[in-house]
Amino acid sequence: MTSPGPGANQGGLPSPESYFIPAGSGSRHTIFPGVEIRTAAGTNLMLSVVHLEPESVVLDHSHPHEQMGILLEGRLEFTVAGVTHLLGPGDMWRIPGGVVHRVQALDQPAIAIDVFHPIREDYL
Amino acid sequence: MTSPGPGANQGGLPSPESYFIPAGSGSRHTIFPGVEIRTAAGTNLMLSVVHLEPESVVLDHSHPHEQMGILLEGRLEFTVAGVTHLLGPGDMWRIPGGVVHRVQALDQPAIAIDVFHPIREDYL
Repeated sequence: MTSPGPGANQGGLPSPESYFIPAGSGSRHTIFPGVEIRTAAGTNLMLSVVHLEPESVVLDHSHPHEQMGILLEGRLEFTVAGVTHLLGPGDMWRIPGGVVHRVQALDQPAIAIDVFHPIREDYL
Repeated sequence: MTSPGPGANQGGLPSPESYFIPAGSGSRHTIFPGVEIRTAAGTNLMLSVVHLEPESVVLDHSHPHEQMGILLEGRLEFTVAGVTHLLGPGDMWRIPGGVVHRVQALDQPAIAIDVFHPIREDYL
């Protein structure tokens, strides 16, 4: 099992060794205080696991990439284009490119899956 | 909270009401015996939750859509282009379009997230 290197995301198809990405590997980024994202990139898809500490906040932002996600653990106050919902495990979101969104973790840790199209070069 | 209807996936951007997809909703399909997929579609992304009963099998198949995924619960014997790995929770996969893959659930139920680009019309 090989952890994906930068080369796995360039030059076309992943090699056979990079069909699988072991748990806990991938590229890590702390994107806001208490918010860590771990990403794996395909060709036109990026899959990520996001850990949010209690009370952490992903401030209002937008990006040209389309985003979808699902909450696995915890509770989030999630705002998309001014529409706020309180989300629990299993709830999903879909955010068109360019639409402003914000996330606030409540009083427990939260874990979410976020996916992007196209891949976010800033998260490689 | 509005469950996504077919209209949410057509005609461009989702409406504000469709930014969020409540847990347990979405479009359900039994794709192989003991294998149920529940999908939500964006514009160029499809996010799905897959439940696999013990010993269930997703037979060898391919599709032009790129696919990535992560195992949440259970154990899978996952084969991509003849490369087989035994996967546990947190392990991920990335499958370029057109590459044959197969999944075998082991002796317990499994839950996975699968994402596709572009959206799979057959899973709407």
